Amino acid sequence: MTNESRIWTAALVVVGDEILSGRTQDKNIAQVATWLGVQGIRLREVRVVPDDMDAIIEAVNTLRARNDYLFTTGGIGPTHDDITVDAVAAALGVDVVIHPKARAILESYYTTRGGLNDARLRMARVPDGADLIDNKVSGAPGIRAGNVYLMAGVPGITAQMLDGLTGQLEGGLPLLSATLGCWVAESEIADLLRETEKAFDGVQIGSYPFFREGRTGANFVVRSVSESQIADCVRTLEQGLTALGREPVAGGI
Amino acid sequence: MTNESRIWTAALVVVGDEILSGRTQDKNIAQVATWLGVQGIRLREVRVVPDDMDAIIEAVNTLRARNDYLFTTGGIGPTHDDITVDAVAAALGVDVVIHPKARAILESYYTTRGGLNDARLRMARVPDGADLIDNKVSGAPGIRAGNVYLMAGVPGITAQMLDGLTGQLEGGLPLLSATLGCWVAESEIADLLRETEKAFDGVQIGSYPFFREGRTGANFVVRSVSESQIADCVRTLEQGLTALGREPVAGGI
Repeated sequence: MTNESRIWTAALVVVGDEILSGRTQDKNIAQVATWLGVQGIRLREVRVVPDDMDAIIEAVNTLRARNDYLFTTGGIGPTHDDITVDAVAAALGVDVVIHPKARAILESYYTTRGGLNDARLRMARVPDGADLIDNKVSGAPGIRAGNVYLMAGVPGITAQMLDGLTGQLEGGLPLLSATLGCWVAESEIADLLRETEKAFDGVQIGSYPFFREGRTGANFVVRSVSESQIADCVRTLEQGLTALGREPVAGGI
Repeated sequence: MTNESRIWTAALVVVGDEILSGRTQDKNIAQVATWLGVQGIRLREVRVVPDDMDAIIEAVNTLRARNDYLFTTGGIGPTHDDITVDAVAAALGVDVVIHPKARAILESYYTTRGGLNDARLRMARVPDGADLIDNKVSGAPGIRAGNVYLMAGVPGITAQMLDGLTGQLEGGLPLLSATLGCWVAESEIADLLRETEKAFDGVQIGSYPFFREGRTGANFVVRSVSESQIADCVRTLEQGLTALGREPVAGGI
């Protein structure tokens, strides 16, 4: 098995009472998922947990063991409810230490912003042995501790940290996809979908129904690591829809 | 301990390759979380898992055991990738059966929509012993199997199913909240937040920073089951911010 055919996986732990209370609409799941896809890494599971040490530790330990990479978002800021660094350190069985480079980054960043106080210095704390992930926006860096990547909760800052990591993680072939839409109830063409998926080994077809402008439709997403296999599968679906008197819409509706 | 002081909890399993691929932005987490809050039930954990039997079964069995209620969204439609009913039945150790009332609902719904075919009849399948949850939009009902509530993946349909369940689940005192905003870096007032939270037993203060219009600010969300305790805590925070020369903004920014 070459590295190209090995499937690389990741999981994501979203830390945040604000997501679980419904106050904040999460945006990091889609953002991290999309970024991972481009790196050739598949997001296998996401857990949203409260700002609670035991809950974070359990999720981190379960998911880092069964995935190549584990990402966390949230809980690395300067306030009392930011406990992700402590929880990840506990999960890894290491101490929390001040990272000298993180301290230097924060000192420089806060020179013109009121100076480095105790709360801000909290953002230089890392699990012992960890490296930093660049963050050009707000000074405070992200953290890599083993295969665990600690990111911010604010989506714009996470985006910067992901940008800093782009191309640095080993991945496999990216999972490619193509979308085909049709103004049809998915229940009318379920046989076609199932049989087409069966005919193409290694291809998954997802069916995503919607109600729009008073009409029923669905988009079919064909996923595979092979571009030619996707093209063949899409052609088969198009022919099948046409044979049923339904017009396929390339690219989706 | 009366029922009022008991804390009722729920978990949510979001079933969907489309969320994990980044293609679809999840909207059900915030929707279910908000609805649960009104019922006096706290959402404790969310897991997003792929359209995979083993992954769904593991999440369902872990989370239904340690929460009063477990919700699932996604995977109860008519197509081959809709396997949530099968996975929940396997998790509960029961067979999958056709629910006679669900069949009757679908027959009636599809009378004017091309009739009930095999794919559509799939949506009448339930774990043996399950009840139905009304869905006024698309015919196919949601399902209650033990303490597991199976909902649609399409957010608008899930909303209808939640509406049908409103007031039917036993809950405790709802967790109330109030928000206070301030144009301040949270790192400048971290001590105030920590000490205020410590002074009010049973109150949590979340700090949610943002960058907007080129300025740094944060919203502070005070949560408790007691309205008077929230009011006292907000007043303490307001006084603390004012004493530091910062203007609190009632209701948040």
